[in-house]
Amino acid sequence: MDKITLLIHCKDQPNIIASVSNFIANNRGNIVYLDQHVDREQDIFFMRLECEFSSSSFSLEDFKMDFKNGLVKTFHLKWRIYSSEKKPKMAVFVSKYDHCLYDILGRYNSGELNLEIPFLLSNHKDLKPIADNFKIPFYHVPVTRNNKAEAEKKQLALLESHDVDFVVLARYMQIVSSTIIDKYPNKIINIHHSFLPVFVGAKPYHSAFKRGVKIIGATSHYITEELDAGPIIAQDVAHISHTYTINDLIAKGRDLEKIVLSNAIKLHANRKVMVFNNKTVIFS
Amino acid sequence: MDKITLLIHCKDQPNIIASVSNFIANNRGNIVYLDQHVDREQDIFFMRLECEFSSSSFSLEDFKMDFKNGLVKTFHLKWRIYSSEKKPKMAVFVSKYDHCLYDILGRYNSGELNLEIPFLLSNHKDLKPIADNFKIPFYHVPVTRNNKAEAEKKQLALLESHDVDFVVLARYMQIVSSTIIDKYPNKIINIHHSFLPVFVGAKPYHSAFKRGVKIIGATSHYITEELDAGPIIAQDVAHISHTYTINDLIAKGRDLEKIVLSNAIKLHANRKVMVFNNKTVIFS
Amino acid sequence: MDKITLLIHCKDQPNIIASVSNFIANNRGNIVYLDQHVDREQDIFFMRLECEFSSSSFSLEDFKMDFKNGLVKTFHLKWRIYSSEKKPKMAVFVSKYDHCLYDILGRYNSGELNLEIPFLLSNHKDLKPIADNFKIPFYHVPVTRNNKAEAEKKQLALLESHDVDFVVLARYMQIVSSTIIDKYPNKIINIHHSFLPVFVGAKPYHSAFKRGVKIIGATSHYITEELDAGPIIAQDVAHISHTYTINDLIAKGRDLEKIVLSNAIKLHANRKVMVFNNKTVIFS
Amino acid sequence: MDKITLLIHCKDQPNIIASVSNFIANNRGNIVYLDQHVDREQDIFFMRLECEFSSSSFSLEDFKMDFKNGLVKTFHLKWRIYSSEKKPKMAVFVSKYDHCLYDILGRYNSGELNLEIPFLLSNHKDLKPIADNFKIPFYHVPVTRNNKAEAEKKQLALLESHDVDFVVLARYMQIVSSTIIDKYPNKIINIHHSFLPVFVGAKPYHSAFKRGVKIIGATSHYITEELDAGPIIAQDVAHISHTYTINDLIAKGRDLEKIVLSNAIKLHANRKVMVFNNKTVIFS
Repeated sequence: MDKITLLIHCKDQPNIIASVSNFIANNRGNIVYLDQHVDREQDIFFMRLECEFSSSSFSLEDFKMDFKNGLVKTFHLKWRIYSSEKKPKMAVFVSKYDHCLYDILGRYNSGELNLEIPFLLSNHKDLKPIADNFKIPFYHVPVTRNNKAEAEKKQLALLESHDVDFVVLARYMQIVSSTIIDKYPNKIINIHHSFLPVFVGAKPYHSAFKRGVKIIGATSHYITEELDAGPIIAQDVAHISHTYTINDLIAKGRDLEKIVLSNAIKLHANRKVMVFNNKTVIFS
Repeated sequence: MDKITLLIHCKDQPNIIASVSNFIANNRGNIVYLDQHVDREQDIFFMRLECEFSSSSFSLEDFKMDFKNGLVKTFHLKWRIYSSEKKPKMAVFVSKYDHCLYDILGRYNSGELNLEIPFLLSNHKDLKPIADNFKIPFYHVPVTRNNKAEAEKKQLALLESHDVDFVVLARYMQIVSSTIIDKYPNKIINIHHSFLPVFVGAKPYHSAFKRGVKIIGATSHYITEELDAGPIIAQDVAHISHTYTINDLIAKGRDLEKIVLSNAIKLHANRKVMVFNNKTVIFS
Repeated sequence: MDKITLLIHCKDQPNIIASVSNFIANNRGNIVYLDQHVDREQDIFFMRLECEFSSSSFSLEDFKMDFKNGLVKTFHLKWRIYSSEKKPKMAVFVSKYDHCLYDILGRYNSGELNLEIPFLLSNHKDLKPIADNFKIPFYHVPVTRNNKAEAEKKQLALLESHDVDFVVLARYMQIVSSTIIDKYPNKIINIHHSFLPVFVGAKPYHSAFKRGVKIIGATSHYITEELDAGPIIAQDVAHISHTYTINDLIAKGRDLEKIVLSNAIKLHANRKVMVFNNKTVIFS
Repeated sequence: MDKITLLIHCKDQPNIIASVSNFIANNRGNIVYLDQHVDREQDIFFMRLECEFSSSSFSLEDFKMDFKNGLVKTFHLKWRIYSSEKKPKMAVFVSKYDHCLYDILGRYNSGELNLEIPFLLSNHKDLKPIADNFKIPFYHVPVTRNNKAEAEKKQLALLESHDVDFVVLARYMQIVSSTIIDKYPNKIINIHHSFLPVFVGAKPYHSAFKRGVKIIGATSHYITEELDAGPIIAQDVAHISHTYTINDLIAKGRDLEKIVLSNAIKLHANRKVMVFNNKTVIFS
């Protein structure tokens, strides 16, 4: 049995759901999940749909071709179709912090993540032993002030040779340039250790401490050229008090970062995120 | 323009979404919201759908008749159709506590609730001034050990004469018998001041204090004959500490009760709740 | 029996707790609550203490005089002493929104708030009926572009003639000038409908919607001359999703505003807040 | 400089704080933290205090002896004194689940936990590689229906020979008998995968699913002879919906279990927990 996930968006207009569900029925498919959203400010229709094809004669290639020549043209759809056969491939970029990495790999090992991790990459060697323990290839690509262009070239080569679908920056601590962003638009997930858009940039825990906030947060978002300003995928917060030192904030923040980043990874890997005009639609 | 909300459930089977969306398209309707859920344990399909009919020739009665004679038979659907023209009518039963009542009426006044309140009813007169202030009819129906059957007869007469759609027990403090429950199945919403199913019955805050829990909760549910065991609509919790006295728990609990009950009311009034085998499906 | 609350802060130094508790014991007082905090960044010691004096010969005035001439000088203490006999008087400033007002008055009526409300004040007449229902004097002081100085003069006169201890701006919607702030430093509590310091200024829900955040918040703080930058007393947040319209955000926000403002009022009225360098210490 | 933590409880009575702080001042100590709580239901006074002794002539043994012969007798104190020099030793018992273990060891490695882990112990060999990676001794003590008494004897011997202060059951999945509990009263921390006291016993996620609750939880508590009924140290919860399968609940629950257990470990290791009559006082 073939199972696919279909994501579409287009200008809002009548009969999209009926037309798409008809198209699937005509291909002897059965819809097992459908959720949609209309952004009334921008007049955009979004839909996420899972369906199964049990016919032995089903061909995904033919289905895509027919879809492209039919409904895509009629409704001017933007669309993506994923086969559930193929798990997405996620590269993990890290630096020296290990808390997000342990969290991701623990979930990966337990079977909680519906994805493959072809490799870890870091500008430092510190976390190589963790990669070794979990038996995941590790690439050390040092980044210095002078070799950044060259380093990103190496990174791109690795992403391409491993057929990577998306990248997660698990506290990577380096700014990724448009060289890479442009090749992976809305496919590079970052974790920022604050409740964006507050406290952008470095040292958000110090800023939070200084301002005396009673809640801290973490934000996972797709990176874009503008720093810390990309579409937000997931956020969470924790209550704090005047008794917290900056180190306490950092420790509490690590818990938030882990959970929020893993949530974002799961949403992306399960193709539940759509992006439009720098905002996300997150299907359940 | 006519706008309707359609709720269906049935044994899970192929092509339901396509058939229903086709049926609507054939009636020149446009689906503006669709969400569905498959309960794989029980093999039941649930769907909630909103659609608009802009044709001047549209007749809701004809639509219902066609639906009933067509898809309902084909798929053995259980179904409900609501016109958005008609706001549901909610009766509010109270006793002496006023916090949930103020919360409901404050929201009602602000236009936040998509419903009408034909009357308040209480076994005591204490809250009549609040009803007066908000200009809502108030009925005093005393309930004693001896007159319960008679009192419920009066209540039923009021519910029927005011064409009430559902009832909210805003800390009503009386057990409602099957005489009324049977006439309003899954239509009587209660607020219980604990995180059900823990601490059922009276005095949950005392039980929570005694057990030394670090979190308290509140639960809104439809009442059924079994006390505190009906389908759960909404729950929320708050962190507490050893410094809380029982009175502190009660005060904190009031905040939870208000929010949770109002959430449940909004979900029900917006026809976002479906019930099957004592569990709810809550559409977003 | 006399019961007092003592708040002190000073440069951190040895023996403060022993000296103060000795002083109280020597006055035949019994400490029933003591909490302290040392801000190690600024090297400041904070303490909050409640004690009871059961001796018939106890004189609060003598106690204060002795304290002032003794420990205050020795340790260079900043100090405040409150008798539990005297409930603080809180003036409530409102505009047209009623949700925070209903919440405050509901709690006030239920006995949850340890304070007195001598009057409500508004630049509009809309909420006068609520004041009437709760039998609280209402003053209408219109504020226009041209009469602001005069209006604030009237406000100050009312605050003084009613012997007001602190003011709560329950969605007052007007900027309070330094004329009033200077007379009530860290005694005017505002509720801001965002998770400060993000989205300062007006229309935070619109900004939150535009940025696509997944969490919204509310902040209660003392007002200072710099807009929305005063010491934060309490904050809370709620999760939202892409399905929320701006109106949904506003409705959800009302729930946050009510709870957060009431928490701040309770903390202030119970003398649990200390302010130093634009940050708060909140005792439990 | 010597730094100690002092925990006391006794029947509530006047002058305890003054007497203790005096005693410390007389020993030329400086109190750097003091928090107390009076349980008014049971009339019990609890206090936690940290103080520093910079005098070169300070002797902890003498201090303890004086304290024991003086204040302990005067006030009939129950007391514990810990030197900050000595980190508590925590044994970790596991079975086959690794999520709590990874979480604990990740924090241990990062320096977040103020304790030492002399060994891991399991009834299975599955998690030995993790112990090896983190370079912590691992003991395999199989437990069968027939060898339980003997196995617990081995466990006790290990606990004693390693001078273990407390034990954490990180999803150990075996019932620990009174043989061990009696030797480590309020020193064996368990993580239960529900919001106790609801859903005691095994399979709480199945019970939660069946009841249709909208929130799940996790509870960390000291084990006592009565199953799942010991003093609660920490709890947390997460919102769920009808879309969650039992496997989704289990995955979500893992996140709760990790956080709640680690919180409990930190509270215990930092000597912030006091137990009285099966309830905890948790100092901040």
